[in-house]
Amino acid sequence: MHFDHVGVATRDAADLAELFDGLLQAPIAHEETFDGMDVAFLELDDGGYFELLEPTAGGAIADYLDREGPGIHHVALATDDIVEALDRARDLGVDIIDETPRPGAWGHEVAFLHPRSTGGVLVEFVEH
Amino acid sequence: MHFDHVGVATRDAADLAELFDGLLQAPIAHEETFDGMDVAFLELDDGGYFELLEPTAGGAIADYLDREGPGIHHVALATDDIVEALDRARDLGVDIIDETPRPGAWGHEVAFLHPRSTGGVLVEFVEH
Repeated sequence: MHFDHVGVATRDAADLAELFDGLLQAPIAHEETFDGMDVAFLELDDGGYFELLEPTAGGAIADYLDREGPGIHHVALATDDIVEALDRARDLGVDIIDETPRPGAWGHEVAFLHPRSTGGVLVEFVEH
Repeated sequence: MHFDHVGVATRDAADLAELFDGLLQAPIAHEETFDGMDVAFLELDDGGYFELLEPTAGGAIADYLDREGPGIHHVALATDDIVEALDRARDLGVDIIDETPRPGAWGHEVAFLHPRSTGGVLVEFVEH
């Protein structure tokens, strides 16, 4: 597994994308509206991404922004076999949010683990 | 620039290291006591790391744990020229915590930017 992206909750994805492009040389590689959010993927030079998440309606990220303010929301690990990764999590007794993979942004299969089982870190598995 | 590591504040680095090794195939690559913390770097298969930070005394991470609880603390971007990266941050008007690079864990040169300037994301530059 390797870092796929770091997910960031924001109230202004366009503004943050412009800053991160200048600061980190991470231009926008993909944008879409997904699940009530404007989502932008900024590509670093090794193919890792920042995923900027700006809610356009209510939902988990809107709630997160109200509760915690903007900042790092989750970290996503890329796997070639998300079903096996979830099986391994289950074997380790980790609480799983998505028991089966579901379609995520950019057409990827994704599944989240519960941070209460993973040291407060919201971990996403993603299979391209 | 590319992801160097995701820094995680924890009250039990040994326990979390064991879990992340099983869950993410990320064995411990380096451990040290640094700046009042037990620090462990867990290596993913592309050379990215989780940096687990367990305070053994007071300090910024102990304060963070008291205030926020355990979880993702910062994201570190690797650069070949940390001085140039800081100059670029300054040119963009970003507030900088470490105006000049300082020695970080594992013998690297590091500098942190202030999250109030970077969308709530605590960004670290690191030069190996």
